[in-house]
Amino acid sequence: MSYTAPLEDMLFDIEHLARIEQLAQIPGFEDAGLETARAVLQECAKFSEGVLSPLNAEGDKNPSVWKDGAVTTPPGFRDALRRYVEGGWQGLQHPTGYGGQGLPKTIGAACIEMCNSANLGFALCPLLTDGAIEALLTAGSDALKAIYLEKLVSGRWSGTMNLTEPQAGSDLALVRTRAEPRPDGSYGIFGSKIFITYGEHDLTENIVHLVLARVAGAPEGVKGISLFVCPKFLVGQDGSLGARNDVYCAGIEHKLGIRASPTAVLQFGAGMVAGAVPGAVGYLVGQENRGLEYMFIMMNAARYAVGLQGIAISERAYQKAVQYARERVQGRPVDGSSQASVAIIEHPDVQRMLMTMRATVEGCRAMACVTAAAFDTAQHHPDAQLRKQSQALHEFLVPLVKGYSTETSLELTSLGLQVHGGMGFIEETGAAQYLRDARILPIYEGTTAIQANDLVGRKTARDGGQTVRAIAAQIEATEAELLASATPAARSMARRLCAARQALLDVVEFVLGTIQTDPQAVFAGSVPYLMLAGNVLAGWQLARSLLVAQDLLRQGRDEAFMRAKIATAQFYAEHILVKAPGLRDSIVEGAGSVRALAPQAF
Amino acid sequence: MSYTAPLEDMLFDIEHLARIEQLAQIPGFEDAGLETARAVLQECAKFSEGVLSPLNAEGDKNPSVWKDGAVTTPPGFRDALRRYVEGGWQGLQHPTGYGGQGLPKTIGAACIEMCNSANLGFALCPLLTDGAIEALLTAGSDALKAIYLEKLVSGRWSGTMNLTEPQAGSDLALVRTRAEPRPDGSYGIFGSKIFITYGEHDLTENIVHLVLARVAGAPEGVKGISLFVCPKFLVGQDGSLGARNDVYCAGIEHKLGIRASPTAVLQFGAGMVAGAVPGAVGYLVGQENRGLEYMFIMMNAARYAVGLQGIAISERAYQKAVQYARERVQGRPVDGSSQASVAIIEHPDVQRMLMTMRATVEGCRAMACVTAAAFDTAQHHPDAQLRKQSQALHEFLVPLVKGYSTETSLELTSLGLQVHGGMGFIEETGAAQYLRDARILPIYEGTTAIQANDLVGRKTARDGGQTVRAIAAQIEATEAELLASATPAARSMARRLCAARQALLDVVEFVLGTIQTDPQAVFAGSVPYLMLAGNVLAGWQLARSLLVAQDLLRQGRDEAFMRAKIATAQFYAEHILVKAPGLRDSIVEGAGSVRALAPQAF
Repeated sequence: MSYTAPLEDMLFDIEHLARIEQLAQIPGFEDAGLETARAVLQECAKFSEGVLSPLNAEGDKNPSVWKDGAVTTPPGFRDALRRYVEGGWQGLQHPTGYGGQGLPKTIGAACIEMCNSANLGFALCPLLTDGAIEALLTAGSDALKAIYLEKLVSGRWSGTMNLTEPQAGSDLALVRTRAEPRPDGSYGIFGSKIFITYGEHDLTENIVHLVLARVAGAPEGVKGISLFVCPKFLVGQDGSLGARNDVYCAGIEHKLGIRASPTAVLQFGAGMVAGAVPGAVGYLVGQENRGLEYMFIMMNAARYAVGLQGIAISERAYQKAVQYARERVQGRPVDGSSQASVAIIEHPDVQRMLMTMRATVEGCRAMACVTAAAFDTAQHHPDAQLRKQSQALHEFLVPLVKGYSTETSLELTSLGLQVHGGMGFIEETGAAQYLRDARILPIYEGTTAIQANDLVGRKTARDGGQTVRAIAAQIEATEAELLASATPAARSMARRLCAARQALLDVVEFVLGTIQTDPQAVFAGSVPYLMLAGNVLAGWQLARSLLVAQDLLRQGRDEAFMRAKIATAQFYAEHILVKAPGLRDSIVEGAGSVRALAPQAF
Repeated sequence: MSYTAPLEDMLFDIEHLARIEQLAQIPGFEDAGLETARAVLQECAKFSEGVLSPLNAEGDKNPSVWKDGAVTTPPGFRDALRRYVEGGWQGLQHPTGYGGQGLPKTIGAACIEMCNSANLGFALCPLLTDGAIEALLTAGSDALKAIYLEKLVSGRWSGTMNLTEPQAGSDLALVRTRAEPRPDGSYGIFGSKIFITYGEHDLTENIVHLVLARVAGAPEGVKGISLFVCPKFLVGQDGSLGARNDVYCAGIEHKLGIRASPTAVLQFGAGMVAGAVPGAVGYLVGQENRGLEYMFIMMNAARYAVGLQGIAISERAYQKAVQYARERVQGRPVDGSSQASVAIIEHPDVQRMLMTMRATVEGCRAMACVTAAAFDTAQHHPDAQLRKQSQALHEFLVPLVKGYSTETSLELTSLGLQVHGGMGFIEETGAAQYLRDARILPIYEGTTAIQANDLVGRKTARDGGQTVRAIAAQIEATEAELLASATPAARSMARRLCAARQALLDVVEFVLGTIQTDPQAVFAGSVPYLMLAGNVLAGWQLARSLLVAQDLLRQGRDEAFMRAKIATAQFYAEHILVKAPGLRDSIVEGAGSVRALAPQAF
């Protein structure tokens, strides 16, 4: 089924929540105002709808295939990547110095959402390339940057992240891949990596693997891990491609979803590549033993992008469900107003499902948009104090964007399937693919539990709750505005937002008061805390949206859209924000029962 | 991975919640006491664990295959069905007069759960046969019963339910299949049916299709639908198999899950079967135009059984997750108590996920067990007043068992996958299959919305809330017992159960007070009402379990089990029952926002 980019909603968020015209005051972003945003988003919509979306179901049906170390991607993917490169989409958010367009993340995020809505299995490739670019920008030497960045930013080469090993998943301290210094300053890399997204494929001329490994004699644990660049083809000083490096793809996984994308097992230095000199050649990124530190810097970007994938797949599922609900005629109105069968979109329960999808997607999108704006401000604003505040806000929001948008994507894609009834269970219908694709999102780039650990430790406890309390104060100000506006929708939102904010603050007090004395009790509720915080922060953005929409409605702007925005926000308040007090009770009063059963008693 | 039937939990429910020794006082159930239950369950566990479970993953990997109208089931399925027949499992709950064992549903339900945990794709075949048996027992003439029942009860023939047509899913009023009376008293059946589970297969000698069709000149809508028996092979008066009937399997579906089971498109009377006389021969069941009425009688049985499937697949997912969490070593304790990596079952968030699975499964199982006991009492107790009460209780509970146990199975099988991290997304791990299999359960035999319509209309409004209020009074009595016991677990449960009961009663008042004036508002919250009621009723059974377990613990019986039961009940109270007030708010105060968006505005 076709995909239509939700341009109006995206531009509403960019204009009114992220306040792009304020961002455009920042030096370097002078050309990145609302009109630029609109033009870029419209182009990206054309590309996503016209090029990527038509390949989505096919890629699921004809997944990437491995043979003798090589991977063939689904039909059409090579051509799509060529057009992606031609359009300059890879460089959107990257520095102009390396051929990028240097646009704010506030604009780039919308484009990433579109590409992932259109074709998540495809869009993963550029997403990983973004990660490699971030890593090199963060810590790469000038020499590495000179050789690799332009090619990556153009999209002609792709990037990968080689973290996971069979014994080292969430716990990267257990990485065993070895790096052996060689006389020429490079390293020999030896070891096996698993779950490497686009670890091998036929889309680009070269693949730039970023690899975590341990130099001999390095300290145990996380402080002995270094980061290396390990290209598929060795690269000359002039950027020309040389011999094949000894990186062998030993197979790809048979997965529940994102089947178009190859998930590779890679063997470094195993002497398996025909014609390659045995021993994979790697180049140190930054300093030895600081690999995880660099990873954490870029991880915020990657985690944020996966959060966008959650929004993207939910949006796609929503559009499909709406389309089916409009077309499928079944059942008479429950109020007996007619004896004729009606489209199921007329039935209240179908409306409830669609509204749940719509409200959650819009809430998550709004939260993600504001998170991007915080990033742009933190990176580029001339005011140091504002940069610092924005950085704290951004960092607090990232685990919420990642965790909340992906966990909810499971519920929403499942609801999308439910709207289809029995047809939803038939693969040809296409609704099931979105559920299958979504299912990896709360797992990769750090499971929801890992995001929640980050939220509790780095983002809440470390600053003594300062950031979250500052956010709560802003939410309280929004409540006051809602009460002042006094419309029924605003009053309903104010009431639910207030209860939800208080629930959040209760939980923050619990976390801060308990983390030292009984950390297990805090971590028993860490994921519910994340879900609560995500719920409140997304709800807050819809509360702001409601106020804006009321104002614009009074000005006579785009009545249908503004009315829908107000209705959607009110639905969110009454059906999603209302969950907050229950979550509070579970977290604050139920920590004991989570751990009451000894492991052997399960 | 292996499956171990949760015999201890099942027998706890049967003994203490269903009170099987009281059921065994009922004439006809004299031999069906606790010892019989134990013996039957132990045998069924052996069969499920040893015969059905090992075929489960294989059946998913090698689904049923269609070729030229015939369907070949996965390897091993024919042999498993032969052993199912030999063991007499099909006849467990069916009348001794037709070769069954006449055991109470209270015992039979546990066996159905086991078979479905072990192999849902297989167990669907006997489940549909049960449906055909119920239909014939309900409305079949003596002649039809004589020809078909013994074969079906033995399991040598299987049964199917032919309801759905492309335009007639949830709305059976739209059925178009025609039945033309023939001089010999039989009917010619003409039309296409879709989504027919085990509509064609190679497991049994004959397949007995129960088919909804319209006799020419019948009234429009639901009052013009009749029920017919239409066997794959025609049957002589002596029960011998004759010629092939004109019922053609035109294909089977490519499904998200339950892939072992063929889901057929059947064409009746299309002249497609080689060697068959054109025109499918059907035999009227009961009277013309009363087909839907008969279906509704047996539908409670089928819906109840699908609820058991929800429990079954969640139990299986739970066991797999526990096993993985015990084996997978990753990460150090969050309290810093050790620098060594531990099994992930030591981590609080993994415990939270496993407890969520365990508590919900045990709550749903307890509710299903009590529902079965109500059925047995309603069908067989000599006291007419008690029969009537039990029937009302049973009928109220059926949509909850179906709706709540299957909706929660989506969350639980998804959590089971999450416990596996990245491995969960790899098909070979097996966790994904449970999620895929579960996804049909809230759809077939009536979607959750259809269950919720039933709950609102037939089960709440029709008796003016009498049944649900009577249940609430019993819950209140349980709360008093909990408060009297005064342990911390009992007090916590009493508090949450009381709040949940009040939330439920608020919603009932809303439903009763609004259904006449604004039915759309009621149906906007019908599924949340079902989820709330299921939550409370399952929680109530765990509250009763908690009280029993405390008593037995004082008596020194089975300490580990009783302590775990108490801990699990308390977890349910603090993490699941706590959702009730939020649901109440959504239903009672949020009906307007569900329908605020016009269909064209989505």
